[in-house]
Amino acid sequence: MRNPEPVLPLDPRALRERIRLWLEEDLGPGDVTSLATVDEGHESTGIIHSKADGIVAGIGVAEEVFRAVDPGVRFRGRVADGEAIAKGTVLAEVEGPTRSILSAERLALNLLQRMSGIATKTRRFVEAVAGTGARIADTRKTTPGHRLLEKYAVRVGGGINHRFGLFDAVLIKDNHIKASGSIRQAVRDARRAVPPTMKIEVEVETFDQLEEALESGADIIMLDNMSAERMREAVKRIRSGSPHVLIEASGGVTLERGRDIAAAGGGIISVGALTHTIEALDISLDLHGKKEQIV
Amino acid sequence: MRNPEPVLPLDPRALRERIRLWLEEDLGPGDVTSLATVDEGHESTGIIHSKADGIVAGIGVAEEVFRAVDPGVRFRGRVADGEAIAKGTVLAEVEGPTRSILSAERLALNLLQRMSGIATKTRRFVEAVAGTGARIADTRKTTPGHRLLEKYAVRVGGGINHRFGLFDAVLIKDNHIKASGSIRQAVRDARRAVPPTMKIEVEVETFDQLEEALESGADIIMLDNMSAERMREAVKRIRSGSPHVLIEASGGVTLERGRDIAAAGGGIISVGALTHTIEALDISLDLHGKKEQIV
Amino acid sequence: MRNPEPVLPLDPRALRERIRLWLEEDLGPGDVTSLATVDEGHESTGIIHSKADGIVAGIGVAEEVFRAVDPGVRFRGRVADGEAIAKGTVLAEVEGPTRSILSAERLALNLLQRMSGIATKTRRFVEAVAGTGARIADTRKTTPGHRLLEKYAVRVGGGINHRFGLFDAVLIKDNHIKASGSIRQAVRDARRAVPPTMKIEVEVETFDQLEEALESGADIIMLDNMSAERMREAVKRIRSGSPHVLIEASGGVTLERGRDIAAAGGGIISVGALTHTIEALDISLDLHGKKEQIV
Amino acid sequence: MRNPEPVLPLDPRALRERIRLWLEEDLGPGDVTSLATVDEGHESTGIIHSKADGIVAGIGVAEEVFRAVDPGVRFRGRVADGEAIAKGTVLAEVEGPTRSILSAERLALNLLQRMSGIATKTRRFVEAVAGTGARIADTRKTTPGHRLLEKYAVRVGGGINHRFGLFDAVLIKDNHIKASGSIRQAVRDARRAVPPTMKIEVEVETFDQLEEALESGADIIMLDNMSAERMREAVKRIRSGSPHVLIEASGGVTLERGRDIAAAGGGIISVGALTHTIEALDISLDLHGKKEQIV
Amino acid sequence: MRNPEPVLPLDPRALRERIRLWLEEDLGPGDVTSLATVDEGHESTGIIHSKADGIVAGIGVAEEVFRAVDPGVRFRGRVADGEAIAKGTVLAEVEGPTRSILSAERLALNLLQRMSGIATKTRRFVEAVAGTGARIADTRKTTPGHRLLEKYAVRVGGGINHRFGLFDAVLIKDNHIKASGSIRQAVRDARRAVPPTMKIEVEVETFDQLEEALESGADIIMLDNMSAERMREAVKRIRSGSPHVLIEASGGVTLERGRDIAAAGGGIISVGALTHTIEALDISLDLHGKKEQIV
Amino acid sequence: MRNPEPVLPLDPRALRERIRLWLEEDLGPGDVTSLATVDEGHESTGIIHSKADGIVAGIGVAEEVFRAVDPGVRFRGRVADGEAIAKGTVLAEVEGPTRSILSAERLALNLLQRMSGIATKTRRFVEAVAGTGARIADTRKTTPGHRLLEKYAVRVGGGINHRFGLFDAVLIKDNHIKASGSIRQAVRDARRAVPPTMKIEVEVETFDQLEEALESGADIIMLDNMSAERMREAVKRIRSGSPHVLIEASGGVTLERGRDIAAAGGGIISVGALTHTIEALDISLDLHGKKEQIV
Repeated sequence: MRNPEPVLPLDPRALRERIRLWLEEDLGPGDVTSLATVDEGHESTGIIHSKADGIVAGIGVAEEVFRAVDPGVRFRGRVADGEAIAKGTVLAEVEGPTRSILSAERLALNLLQRMSGIATKTRRFVEAVAGTGARIADTRKTTPGHRLLEKYAVRVGGGINHRFGLFDAVLIKDNHIKASGSIRQAVRDARRAVPPTMKIEVEVETFDQLEEALESGADIIMLDNMSAERMREAVKRIRSGSPHVLIEASGGVTLERGRDIAAAGGGIISVGALTHTIEALDISLDLHGKKEQIV
Repeated sequence: MRNPEPVLPLDPRALRERIRLWLEEDLGPGDVTSLATVDEGHESTGIIHSKADGIVAGIGVAEEVFRAVDPGVRFRGRVADGEAIAKGTVLAEVEGPTRSILSAERLALNLLQRMSGIATKTRRFVEAVAGTGARIADTRKTTPGHRLLEKYAVRVGGGINHRFGLFDAVLIKDNHIKASGSIRQAVRDARRAVPPTMKIEVEVETFDQLEEALESGADIIMLDNMSAERMREAVKRIRSGSPHVLIEASGGVTLERGRDIAAAGGGIISVGALTHTIEALDISLDLHGKKEQIV
Repeated sequence: MRNPEPVLPLDPRALRERIRLWLEEDLGPGDVTSLATVDEGHESTGIIHSKADGIVAGIGVAEEVFRAVDPGVRFRGRVADGEAIAKGTVLAEVEGPTRSILSAERLALNLLQRMSGIATKTRRFVEAVAGTGARIADTRKTTPGHRLLEKYAVRVGGGINHRFGLFDAVLIKDNHIKASGSIRQAVRDARRAVPPTMKIEVEVETFDQLEEALESGADIIMLDNMSAERMREAVKRIRSGSPHVLIEASGGVTLERGRDIAAAGGGIISVGALTHTIEALDISLDLHGKKEQIV
Repeated sequence: MRNPEPVLPLDPRALRERIRLWLEEDLGPGDVTSLATVDEGHESTGIIHSKADGIVAGIGVAEEVFRAVDPGVRFRGRVADGEAIAKGTVLAEVEGPTRSILSAERLALNLLQRMSGIATKTRRFVEAVAGTGARIADTRKTTPGHRLLEKYAVRVGGGINHRFGLFDAVLIKDNHIKASGSIRQAVRDARRAVPPTMKIEVEVETFDQLEEALESGADIIMLDNMSAERMREAVKRIRSGSPHVLIEASGGVTLERGRDIAAAGGGIISVGALTHTIEALDISLDLHGKKEQIV
Repeated sequence: MRNPEPVLPLDPRALRERIRLWLEEDLGPGDVTSLATVDEGHESTGIIHSKADGIVAGIGVAEEVFRAVDPGVRFRGRVADGEAIAKGTVLAEVEGPTRSILSAERLALNLLQRMSGIATKTRRFVEAVAGTGARIADTRKTTPGHRLLEKYAVRVGGGINHRFGLFDAVLIKDNHIKASGSIRQAVRDARRAVPPTMKIEVEVETFDQLEEALESGADIIMLDNMSAERMREAVKRIRSGSPHVLIEASGGVTLERGRDIAAAGGGIISVGALTHTIEALDISLDLHGKKEQIV
Repeated sequence: MRNPEPVLPLDPRALRERIRLWLEEDLGPGDVTSLATVDEGHESTGIIHSKADGIVAGIGVAEEVFRAVDPGVRFRGRVADGEAIAKGTVLAEVEGPTRSILSAERLALNLLQRMSGIATKTRRFVEAVAGTGARIADTRKTTPGHRLLEKYAVRVGGGINHRFGLFDAVLIKDNHIKASGSIRQAVRDARRAVPPTMKIEVEVETFDQLEEALESGADIIMLDNMSAERMREAVKRIRSGSPHVLIEASGGVTLERGRDIAAAGGGIISVGALTHTIEALDISLDLHGKKEQIV
């Protein structure tokens, strides 16, 4: 099953500087093994293949890594991000200077494995709520420095993104409410201070808070850590008087609880586990010499 | 059980620039919610506490994050890296400007959760081989940009580090052997080209390769993907003629297989799963107003 | 008249790196005049004062510049951002090593003059629409590298901000509509692809476009380059059926036209001239020796 | 009228890193509107045209912006920096991926508008003093981070540059004189401390200071804030005994006063207003689909 | 005589960012002389030639400098790193825009001269110990920021490298021994704390220290500042019981003492003077106009 | 003998970023030896002392290095830059965490040794021309990345600086003359294109060129590679008609030739060897434990 929705692509601009830093981390003063044991002119071809079933994400990112090490490496993706792959699927072919391929290998795989792992897990959550109309969203519990990549992997897996960071939407949580005095005060302050192009979301745990959030004119209500039953009631309350308000369910969402929550009617289910726990998909690079390939 | 070994500490120099970049990722043009809803002079105290059992790692890193956002935040660690903590344990207290604490919260927790997750998993592997004399080592399958932090977390969990990157030891794998022509040639080339302060490790899959590696004078032999039985035999062969050679077992090591491999006598067992799959330990920050605390 | 609204403050984090680069631009290999003619131990005090009437903005920014050159310079602001100042008003006092003060002077003044110029102009627009309920907003026509500072100066002057950049809200303009095929298609694509925390704004020039934008469910409608009369009609149309939709008026707004547009009922009036044309407020630094001051 | 003098070109090296930072400011995590509503393969052509009369500056800079976003965008300048353009003039054509053009548009225009505004204003000052032999020079009152661009725009407009920063010439002002003790002392110290390749300029306000500056052997004398009459006298004094000394007139120079000052004989007239007040020239980008263009 | 050993090549990745910074140092706001006096379209050819005998190193580095300034400059190396060149030898030809060649000239020569100077001096040391089996190694006494280049130049001259920095091998010196308590304690702590892929070297000055170092199992023993006689004795002692241990001689090694030390049997002789004292090889760039060349 | 002239100090701003990069080069992922063998709380005191006679330069730079590694290290300089020191002189004391002192040691010494070596050599040249009125100047043949430090060391040794880079003075050499057509043309172009605050220097090799340079109004004439006799004649020619013109002698100036050249009357003698060949002054750090010191 291909991802049926249009996916916001990854802007490649943001990647280059990071890949440079990440290569620096691994290569430092130089890949001594490849430089010492592989001849400068030696060329190889190789395949990147999966050793497990899953959803692939990061083909373009892996390509950028090889290009960053050496523009002379040819990289041909054989699957597209979002495709369901089976164990044994060839994801890409690489061809070029052996030294460069070996120096780039680990970083390319580390990224591809993690991103594919996130897409794979997201797809499982998306399938768990299929047919309910609910959408699976990520959180800010991403790996530091990898937010754009991980949020892209979530989209590739069929999920949607919550805000990119603390700067592109207002999310008033209990700590803000305490510091502000009340939901009412916090929403009013936010409405006056932030651009009118920005939405304001309020996290509520009780029905009193829900009433206050609705009255204060929040654009999105996050129902935090509610049972499916309470959530159904809350959704009904919101739908009755404030049809424009978006509803988000949050808090300890597991694959098991996902469907119940979805059935309760919350439009968006945000799942921290999509990115706070990363299960790399097993992906390898196999190299063979130029001659072997030709024969 | 505290980690009984002296642990190579983390050099804090390397952290500051990264934390700045990671904060930039989350804060961008500004934490609009905190800036809009929390008064500039508002102060809070809070506790960072664990919601699960595990081994804590990253207390000093979390402290650096709060300091990077605002040197006016006081941070008091209540446990030390390496301690086994139970659900409910308070890991640290923070006190200072509420805005600053809220802006730093997510990055501090994202790091602390991941590092503690790695230490916790490492400890499990270490305990699985306890008494065999084997040591659990990490690999280069770390999160890009996080290698120093993740290798430190492995040490905190009682494991040891393999090389830091491609620059501080020679590891000749099958791809290098193919490109070089033979193990013999590859080791000879490496011995001449790299500093004599560097060790040379060779990965072998067969007993023929093992013989060639021993003859060529490798400092470390990595036994790749061998059954416990074959490994026992290989270890015996190495110990008989080359007592100075270090032995490393590698390839698909799981908690289940760990003890068997350890019993086979390989001194070092390298485990990619320590860092290629990250299970965040559940850690939270709870804030309460200054007044509440005083009363 | 002080700015009566809560103003989203400037996050000082974002400033430090820029100030370092800007100082580098001016100081390069060193301020040869001060280094050659002023003794290392020489100290001075000085005042920063205005030579024109206006609204001050950037006191904290100027302070950061002096601190960046030399933490030993004491800076005491005497007015707060947003205050209306008259010619002759002392804005701040500085005291410390003369070399450091002279090396920092130009950058501090360049920033303070520009930011105060923007705040002053914004205030004029705000006063022009006073009583109509309309709010004056900025655009992305800011000086490259100065967006955060200039948007802050707009807030200080009593205006509000439109989006910070291309990343925190969707604004579908005629070029997007052409490339997408229709407003309907563009809004649908955006709704699916971007986070649900993000608002979608559509720019319309005709009443047909307005109908399509309303049907497609845009959160904000920008009425582009309409006469006051047509705008009144458009506002009436929107208010009648879509009370939740925000209205923005845009296009060649001058101080003269501002009030008419405001009276037409558009809630937000975005004014490119707030930042695309910068009139520095005349602000100077006068230094006098330590002894002179003491006597 | 084209600029008849050879103009020191802008070194493109210095631009690339800045353009990258400025794009980051506008694009952040990505241009969500273009990414969501414009198809990846969609191509457009467009024209950059002026909506006002003026002197164009920055064509090459705009080209660099498009190239930085996407080397696949073709940019063809149709006028050269320094040309006088009329409302409606097409300055350049762009052709390529629509997403890339839209993402680059704002930054390219923001730079082109500001630089052309500076060149246009400079030309007005140059024309005001035409025939007097005086030359119009800029100051260090430039926008932080834009000094090279703005000084280039001044040259394009027919002006000349004063020093690039605090590092490439000595300019002794009243604050330095106070701290040093006397003009004599300051010039002597500077002469001994700075490279002999550097000129020394002294700012004078009185005729006593002028005598002291001449005796101390200053290379350039800046007559600060003098009336045209006093300036004539000062120029006569300098010319009589020190024909090698350059004369600069400075301080509150407006278009109105410019000619009088020029007639007084000061060779160089430095005008802070060239860059401390920026009036963007109105320049737009119009896009049309590929097909439309072909037909 | 060409260098007969395979030499670990320089990873070009590490160079680009540095060359950018070094160009910035020399070019700053622009090469005013070339920009003002050389026409934009003017092209030249030129040769880089040696004015002294020596060993060349850095041809590829010089090429990178010209490319960094302008990819339009063609650079053709005529000798390879490691070749012995005589006064008058042409090292490379350059062809392209005159401005670019002149702007790059100084940095390219500064690097080429220094690197060739280091290779030349290294070769002298290597020849002084020829036939003894000893190898000449560098130290960490390199020019800050140039370590990779200088260590490469040492390899080009026929020497070998000691560790790259403080991170890729353990070297326990007297200060560490004092702080640790004893050699035994220091080696034990290091063995437990650092990766098993890392070697441990101990510096000894007395025979008691030598015994302790051998017992503690050091991989390398550095004999510091010993006379040739004592060194012979120490080498004998090590060879007798610990054939696997590498021996390094260090301390005030001059060309004169080198052969005696080598004859004493220490395998590695580390020479601080290879890089702490730099004697640039005299290398020049001569330009001639395009036409002249053709005729 | 202290340097009797006021010396342009080094702006410490420029150093911090470089020291950070240079530390990164040496420390990389961490100083494994110190981290593994020295206890976290261990403190030491130590002295930096000279093992040779010379002129010291860089005390403040060494201090910055220790501070960059650890602000907890106390550094007390005991001599000032420019002092003549004898073998055995204590230059500074350091006190603080042993780990930090050891991690900073090498970089601090590498800088101090090189800078003092340059100051020492400069002093020798200055003394060689003492009494002639000639001044010894440096060139752009500095170590890439170290220009500010090396030019400062030249000043400390009693020399003066030539231009800082290609940006702060015009120096028309034979290549520019060829490309421009004539000295006359090149000087005219430069005069029109560069700021009037900048001097124009012309390099001449013949008396015809000298005449042309004088007629064209060059501010400085560089007599390149002339014998002392021809130089005398050239100086006479310049002094007779153009007393304002500065004279610089250049080309293969050695200590031996220096005095002859100086006697020929050229005011400035530029010496590439001051920085293209670096002879480090031998300087060491000796550490002793805290207790030892106290007793």
